[in-house]
Amino acid sequence: MNYIEKLRASSDTFHSIVCLGLDPVLADIPIQDGGPRQRIYNFYESILNALLHKKIYPAAVKPNYAFYAQYGLEGIACCADVIALYRNAGLPVILDVKRGDIGSTADAYSREAFDFFNADAVTLSPYMGYDSIEPFIKNYPSKGYYILNKTSNKSSADIQDIMVEGRPMYLHVASKIAEWHKPGIGAVVGATYPEQLGQIAEVFVGSGKDIPLLIPGVGTQGGSVKDVCKELTRFSDVRIHRINSSRAINYAYKKYSGLHFADAAAQALKTLNDEINSLIFQ
Amino acid sequence: MNYIEKLRASSDTFHSIVCLGLDPVLADIPIQDGGPRQRIYNFYESILNALLHKKIYPAAVKPNYAFYAQYGLEGIACCADVIALYRNAGLPVILDVKRGDIGSTADAYSREAFDFFNADAVTLSPYMGYDSIEPFIKNYPSKGYYILNKTSNKSSADIQDIMVEGRPMYLHVASKIAEWHKPGIGAVVGATYPEQLGQIAEVFVGSGKDIPLLIPGVGTQGGSVKDVCKELTRFSDVRIHRINSSRAINYAYKKYSGLHFADAAAQALKTLNDEINSLIFQ
Repeated sequence: MNYIEKLRASSDTFHSIVCLGLDPVLADIPIQDGGPRQRIYNFYESILNALLHKKIYPAAVKPNYAFYAQYGLEGIACCADVIALYRNAGLPVILDVKRGDIGSTADAYSREAFDFFNADAVTLSPYMGYDSIEPFIKNYPSKGYYILNKTSNKSSADIQDIMVEGRPMYLHVASKIAEWHKPGIGAVVGATYPEQLGQIAEVFVGSGKDIPLLIPGVGTQGGSVKDVCKELTRFSDVRIHRINSSRAINYAYKKYSGLHFADAAAQALKTLNDEINSLIFQ
Repeated sequence: MNYIEKLRASSDTFHSIVCLGLDPVLADIPIQDGGPRQRIYNFYESILNALLHKKIYPAAVKPNYAFYAQYGLEGIACCADVIALYRNAGLPVILDVKRGDIGSTADAYSREAFDFFNADAVTLSPYMGYDSIEPFIKNYPSKGYYILNKTSNKSSADIQDIMVEGRPMYLHVASKIAEWHKPGIGAVVGATYPEQLGQIAEVFVGSGKDIPLLIPGVGTQGGSVKDVCKELTRFSDVRIHRINSSRAINYAYKKYSGLHFADAAAQALKTLNDEINSLIFQ
């Protein structure tokens, strides 16, 4: 099964297009026993158990590498453990590492993502061009490769919004992504910029190719689910796209007082699934 | 001592502006005993011992993270070990990771680079803009932060050469780097593009700020030392710049048959130091 088929299948199975970000912050994890590795693992194991028990699912998960690597080797070991845990539950795993380096180095990074971490997809930076992307596809042709396009942060404007021959840079990058297209190549577009998401969607829909979007920025970052879903309905098959939420689900216990942290996460995921599904599956 | 001062001091002490890339490829390491961690560590320990013994020094080292991470946890642990080894010998360590992510994530990446790996400098991608750079500077103000500008690979043209209002993208990024300037902010410019290096040097010299260059691409990638040195003489103080060579020094034993791999690496470094010094220190 290639990555696009995997996205469709997981959306059908779990009736969701949500990607659950798994971004550990020890100060926010309400488990005190053990070292970083044990606390993070137990936190995400409890959340997974609550999801399975309540039959509330995301359609992918996305550990962001930085949140593990900040705790050194223990954290990185834990990242591999968490990936295995969620992958064994049948969920596609997007390793959010935003790699980008010359060919021989990209070769090594592809082994890190797909051999060592055994992820289903990876995030990549476009700045160094196609030969920094190609080794991932060549070495692991059935995986997913999300290329940063218009990112959710405020400073994304610094480079991505520079006007080039009357079009902002992010649209040139969108055209490159469509031009580089191979099955599994996707794009990261922030929910915080719905208008730009619409413009990018137009490029991708116009290309006639299946380019899965990974959309971070709803929840804590403030992107509107309604605006994003409106843009997603431009596509013939919305099941290949994923809307990511990390902190607002991981640490939902701060909002739902009285609930166990795992039940709170399940509740927040259910609320997001319901909202999105009501907007896209009518 | 801030990073710029560290660069000047190490150039004076070691009479060099070479950065020695430490990029392990197990298939090329002529040590068979032990697992990846032991083989890589022994390889770079032998090379360091040969350098110290012969009094041949680089003025910085640059482990590229990908080459360690491709071997999983063992490799990453080894990266930390190798950094400690060379740092204890008084060499500035540039961790080549090309990170780039939103603020809260960049925060975590800064801890990885400077707390866990204890590096002196880091490489960063500009694609997500200044808020992906700022946490590194804010959290660790005396370190170095090299931002990708015009990279050495062929496909760097895909994005970096796009013409924007009559100037290629890489010159806009150079202007941004000069505009974002804080002590320690530098730029990565490939030796394979001497003309573009000259244009970027002009922007930086014109800004009146100390912006250290990290220049990969001589040796195996084919960049000309002579061309690079010619451009470097535009700067009032060449000691803050570094010309990187990795494979051509690491695996010089393939060229110098009959020499032990560590002696061959020392010989290759000496040749490069001599060539560069004769061109820049006259």
